[in-house]
Amino acid sequence: MKPINVGIMGVGTVGGGTATVLKRNAEEISRRAGRAIVLKMAANLDIARAREIVGDGIEIVSDARVVATHPDIDIVIELIGGTGIAKDLVLTAIDHGKHVVTANKKLLAEHGNEIFARAREKGVMVAFEAAVAGGIPIIKALREGLAANHIEWIAGIINGTSNYILTEMREKGLPFADALAEAQRLGYAEADPTFDIEGHDAGHKLTIMAALAFGIPMQFDKCYLEGISTLTAQDIRYAEELGYRVKLLGITRRTAAGIELRVHPTLIPESVLIANVNGVMNAVLVKGDAVGPTLYYGAGAGALPTASAVVADIVDIARLATADPEHRVPYLAFQPDRIADLPLLPIEAVESSYYLRVCVIDKPGVLAELTHILADESISIEALIQKGSERDGQAEIVLLTHRVVERRVQSAIARIEALASVTDKVVRLRMEALNG
Amino acid sequence: MKPINVGIMGVGTVGGGTATVLKRNAEEISRRAGRAIVLKMAANLDIARAREIVGDGIEIVSDARVVATHPDIDIVIELIGGTGIAKDLVLTAIDHGKHVVTANKKLLAEHGNEIFARAREKGVMVAFEAAVAGGIPIIKALREGLAANHIEWIAGIINGTSNYILTEMREKGLPFADALAEAQRLGYAEADPTFDIEGHDAGHKLTIMAALAFGIPMQFDKCYLEGISTLTAQDIRYAEELGYRVKLLGITRRTAAGIELRVHPTLIPESVLIANVNGVMNAVLVKGDAVGPTLYYGAGAGALPTASAVVADIVDIARLATADPEHRVPYLAFQPDRIADLPLLPIEAVESSYYLRVCVIDKPGVLAELTHILADESISIEALIQKGSERDGQAEIVLLTHRVVERRVQSAIARIEALASVTDKVVRLRMEALNG
Repeated sequence: MKPINVGIMGVGTVGGGTATVLKRNAEEISRRAGRAIVLKMAANLDIARAREIVGDGIEIVSDARVVATHPDIDIVIELIGGTGIAKDLVLTAIDHGKHVVTANKKLLAEHGNEIFARAREKGVMVAFEAAVAGGIPIIKALREGLAANHIEWIAGIINGTSNYILTEMREKGLPFADALAEAQRLGYAEADPTFDIEGHDAGHKLTIMAALAFGIPMQFDKCYLEGISTLTAQDIRYAEELGYRVKLLGITRRTAAGIELRVHPTLIPESVLIANVNGVMNAVLVKGDAVGPTLYYGAGAGALPTASAVVADIVDIARLATADPEHRVPYLAFQPDRIADLPLLPIEAVESSYYLRVCVIDKPGVLAELTHILADESISIEALIQKGSERDGQAEIVLLTHRVVERRVQSAIARIEALASVTDKVVRLRMEALNG
Repeated sequence: MKPINVGIMGVGTVGGGTATVLKRNAEEISRRAGRAIVLKMAANLDIARAREIVGDGIEIVSDARVVATHPDIDIVIELIGGTGIAKDLVLTAIDHGKHVVTANKKLLAEHGNEIFARAREKGVMVAFEAAVAGGIPIIKALREGLAANHIEWIAGIINGTSNYILTEMREKGLPFADALAEAQRLGYAEADPTFDIEGHDAGHKLTIMAALAFGIPMQFDKCYLEGISTLTAQDIRYAEELGYRVKLLGITRRTAAGIELRVHPTLIPESVLIANVNGVMNAVLVKGDAVGPTLYYGAGAGALPTASAVVADIVDIARLATADPEHRVPYLAFQPDRIADLPLLPIEAVESSYYLRVCVIDKPGVLAELTHILADESISIEALIQKGSERDGQAEIVLLTHRVVERRVQSAIARIEALASVTDKVVRLRMEALNG
């Protein structure tokens, strides 16, 4: 059978990895795909740099439009990133009848609806396994492997940088800043780490998974984002004493009222498998009504793991390229005309358990004031410990609540912080049992 | 689009689960598949029992051949099990142009080559996600999600019964017989548990995964099987003291000399994620050259989890049914004309690390005799502890070796057992770091 010709737009880490995998495993990949996959062309502004990365025997151009529109190219691989030029190029490739593979989570989470609609019009495939959790085939699992299920919720460690920092903070008792500096030194965090540590990256990935799980449009603008930069080693230690680990989770859940879509540090019981996913590794826990909980674990970033996902998408397209477009697997797991408009819940309407740490003056009656407010807001307490404080004459009260809607907790915190005996802002973290 | 009609042969636990899932999630499944999936017919010798399980509105027949050959049926679901009548019926269904979904690991591991060849001739699909690790979409991951990789090895906890027994033995210090009795009481083990506890079931599943990973024919007859029935709580405790858990693993590995295919109790470091998979849960760890290690975890058995896999296969077939047979995903991940005939290694040629426990008379010089034999066989020792024995005047020597080919260990054990100071059979367990 005739080879499939692919062209890469944007030659960096993942582009280099893709070239390596296609070359090194060419024989094995063609035994699977039934045809050769040929990296025919690559586009990069810096041609010399791209040549160094992809090696000889591949045409390199500086204008990515050449790849997006070239008559010899069957599949265009977009590895430029961002939503500006990348979006234009992806739409151009689609308009020219090319299938597209992309690792660009931001592009899909923010403009996916438009891109998939255009692809549908033109009868081409858009595949994006590499956009979520790197090499872990979680897109395929959600879109195909779990297709029998009413998916109830997903909770994922989907940002390796943050997970590395949290692992260092726990294992070495480091403050956030030191763990971040260490991550930067090792190349696990960017010079400007905002995108990773404040939850944006995880939010993009979560938005894509929610669309696949529930058959809803991409709605990144409604995703709640809270990062890890204000977390203290002290709270991680207290959580540990109570039997919990703190992880930056992306959580999406279907409730009677609507869909939760939220990224935040979360206490989870140390006994659940995903609590033991450490360092830069990623894992996604999916709860389906039939299958129960399933977990998918692996490298969430890096040249070769991400290339593994890019090339799997190419093989999928090679296998399906001649099939009737109406019979292919739908982009977002659900048929485009069967997408639901379930409402997305604001964070105030989300139900969770909570970890609260309150700094108080150590005198009689303070605990009574606190527990009175919680009772008044119908918040019931699961556990409570009192800790000495480093500050003279003060104490810390750490408590875990049962499940309650977030607006009650917000109200309780405002009232607690107004108490004369409370000396600092209340620390509030969410907590999930992940067994429901 | 016209509905897909399915018929079930053999209505038991999984058949009931499949009927439940198809009914309960009908709306959501059709939103994904683009067409309704209708359970039209079921065959069972006991018609009244089948009626109780699948409910009204479905035609029930006693002769499964009616389902296998019925002109209205598009997909036949084989849930009879075993290799006798099930094989005849699957071949009959294929001959009648039906796509087949089966959960029958024994049938595929022992007769898969013949079945897939026939299916290819007739241009129909045979899907079997439910045959390995229940609801975990591991077949899809191996066949499609990891298609870019040169797969190096797989290690799986793929028999829930055995994992439950081992978990109980460890957590409660129970002897094997008591843990088995408890598993039987809870319905996790059959009255005759041989198939599960002696590794046959895991061997069937492993054989299927090896074929998918390496592009080799099914060769169950060359799979090495060693079960857990002779394991003692004492060895599990000693392993734990050394930082290891004992799991019944199915391991298949590609080496320069050939393919390893083996099921046996295995010591693995407690720090690896799969060591913390407990109870009846399953997990499969796959090492690919590009993606690195990935892990897939979930329920390996049960009505609804297995039905989740059966129905995912039906949806896959519904999506691909009209595609050109030459462009579908190959049954065993590799194109049928590109299957390799790599040799399968006998257990003597396998390389592993080992746990050895030797009962000796507690007197000077014994350890020297032992270590002399090991040195002479070029077996190097990683750790060694000496333990008091319950038997007067005796001691136990527990040692862990570095990696070495098994035939040297067999030879060393024979020589050790021949020593006058050695009072009992040597206990030999294999050990894997799972980080290679």
